[in-house]
Amino acid sequence: MKYGAERVSNINLSQVRKMFEQASPTAINLALGEPDFDTPPHILKSLKEAIDNKYTHYSQNKGEPELREELSKKLAKDNNIKVSSDDVIVTVGASEALYSSIQALINPGDDVLIQDPAFLSYAECVKIAGANSVPVLTNSENKFKITIDDVEKSLTDKTKAIIINSPCNPTGSVIEKEDLKAISDLATDKDLIIFSDEVYEKIIYDKKHYSFQTYTDNAVTINAFSKSYAMTGLRIGYCSSNPDIIAEILKVHQYNVACIDTATQRAAITALTGPQECVTEMTNEFRKRRDLVVESLNNMGLKCINPEGAFYVFFENENPQEFVNKAVKEDVILVPGGAFGTAGKNYIRLSYAQSYDNLAEAMKRLEKIV
Amino acid sequence: MKYGAERVSNINLSQVRKMFEQASPTAINLALGEPDFDTPPHILKSLKEAIDNKYTHYSQNKGEPELREELSKKLAKDNNIKVSSDDVIVTVGASEALYSSIQALINPGDDVLIQDPAFLSYAECVKIAGANSVPVLTNSENKFKITIDDVEKSLTDKTKAIIINSPCNPTGSVIEKEDLKAISDLATDKDLIIFSDEVYEKIIYDKKHYSFQTYTDNAVTINAFSKSYAMTGLRIGYCSSNPDIIAEILKVHQYNVACIDTATQRAAITALTGPQECVTEMTNEFRKRRDLVVESLNNMGLKCINPEGAFYVFFENENPQEFVNKAVKEDVILVPGGAFGTAGKNYIRLSYAQSYDNLAEAMKRLEKIV
Repeated sequence: MKYGAERVSNINLSQVRKMFEQASPTAINLALGEPDFDTPPHILKSLKEAIDNKYTHYSQNKGEPELREELSKKLAKDNNIKVSSDDVIVTVGASEALYSSIQALINPGDDVLIQDPAFLSYAECVKIAGANSVPVLTNSENKFKITIDDVEKSLTDKTKAIIINSPCNPTGSVIEKEDLKAISDLATDKDLIIFSDEVYEKIIYDKKHYSFQTYTDNAVTINAFSKSYAMTGLRIGYCSSNPDIIAEILKVHQYNVACIDTATQRAAITALTGPQECVTEMTNEFRKRRDLVVESLNNMGLKCINPEGAFYVFFENENPQEFVNKAVKEDVILVPGGAFGTAGKNYIRLSYAQSYDNLAEAMKRLEKIV
Repeated sequence: MKYGAERVSNINLSQVRKMFEQASPTAINLALGEPDFDTPPHILKSLKEAIDNKYTHYSQNKGEPELREELSKKLAKDNNIKVSSDDVIVTVGASEALYSSIQALINPGDDVLIQDPAFLSYAECVKIAGANSVPVLTNSENKFKITIDDVEKSLTDKTKAIIINSPCNPTGSVIEKEDLKAISDLATDKDLIIFSDEVYEKIIYDKKHYSFQTYTDNAVTINAFSKSYAMTGLRIGYCSSNPDIIAEILKVHQYNVACIDTATQRAAITALTGPQECVTEMTNEFRKRRDLVVESLNNMGLKCINPEGAFYVFFENENPQEFVNKAVKEDVILVPGGAFGTAGKNYIRLSYAQSYDNLAEAMKRLEKIV
């Protein structure tokens, strides 16, 4: 008997994971998509208090009202997005926000434009919805920033939505404000939905982060506590949108996961309302590491753009798979850029979510193979 | 602009939740689908230790290997199911196990047989997959136990799967072993998948719980820590099946939620390997409450079957909505049986996941309206 619905027949498991399996235990892993920092102690303290206070029963499907209230305030303050607490759903990380919202809003046969290169989940979620991915190719000449022209060129008569990630994994690019506004206007005019993955919003250097939902009602803002507060393993994220869209997403979310861990939601309230120095400190540390890596790579003759956000450097290489294989032999794990889309095929992604010392050592090892 | 994919256009939000909204704060809520008990202290202690030990980073997509190893042992010991730890996926409660497995295995246009009455999520998950629900009507003459005859009568030429829940929410019925074996054989012979929701396996009185996966490779066993260990708000469940089916479910699970809370997985290891008296104590308490409720209802002339499992009593009534409305006025919340399917339309579900004293008081209040 052959199992498997058609919607999953072409689903690929992550190539990033495959890289890990080849590595020795002494390898320096520069393939990771999560901060190496531990969750700040005051957030963990709050989590343990929530457990002591018996926050171990179901929460509302949408999430704890107090957390949604704080998220509504956060969205107003940080993102200039005006939504009520009812227009927010607390999710199992940004993953489930992305997955449930795509399943709720996209029909089989729809075209969904996806920034390319980008996080590999986007195309897979679109496939599971039975829809088609249309890559919006970005390029190094424009520092991999997605523009209104890129989007307009890619439009088809079946385009239903656009998925954008700024700051971007794997390129570190940050969209320019004019393009963000123009794409927002396009979404309003043409009834397109923008899925805006903003998980790296706090990890940004010398730029300001803007949100599509500030400029169009047709945006779904997807975010998480994972990267900003080093809470990856706690699996908490959220989405916000207009009430009609939220009503649709809730239908999937409710039957998919019911609700998320209640104690973790209390800890998330602490993350939002507590001291924010932890976020600034992490970002400052990431900046130092970025500067080390970019300078080292450029000194080795490995061309790369100075990333404006996230914690990845995307550097040029003519034969990425060969380079990555050589790097594994030197105990450094990297990911070929092709894993993130066509436009990444001559690049390699290096994550600097590793200690400064490990990064310095990794640079020495890479020097041997260039 | 009208939002919403076709797959969610007919999705209903839970009627159970609607009942809550009508209630006063002093009402006794007998509509709840979760144990009123708190999570046992040794499990919470283990959870807090896991947090202290920095289990706050991503786990493997399938779940922590040590937990899957313990689940493999548990399935062998309790359920006589022989699977390796690789054939288990740790999920966001039984909800996500059910949702992800249905999305992974069912195509649009497939018919899925669903025990009726049953938990309302089943039909909604089938709708989201674009498939059709075919109710397998059970009846009070047979104590709402699903039989091989019921299933055979309901088969269509497009039947792809059967969803069964034993012990059953809302009826408390437990399937007979001969029927379970016969339905397993049918699944093997006709290449049907059985989604077996076993979340109430430990809450069973004077009967033994059997699993379909013991008798057929075509079963997906769905279970959770929620009911057995009063861990609802911690959102942890799992599914097991044959390697080919697990490979398909993993494709959805990975892009849906990535993985579940890592610290909670450590606590789940403690739940499985620690003392099991907490489970027996809860079941004994549920039995006392069941006896109180069944006796009281029968004394009032409200006919009901003595449930063999779960924590619900399903009693007969000619006009359930009217009765439920009257009960709300007396500050008792119940759910009309029609919420769980056609075969429940002349019934009312009463959850005895409430303290003995509250149940005794609720019985007095109901006496006023019969």
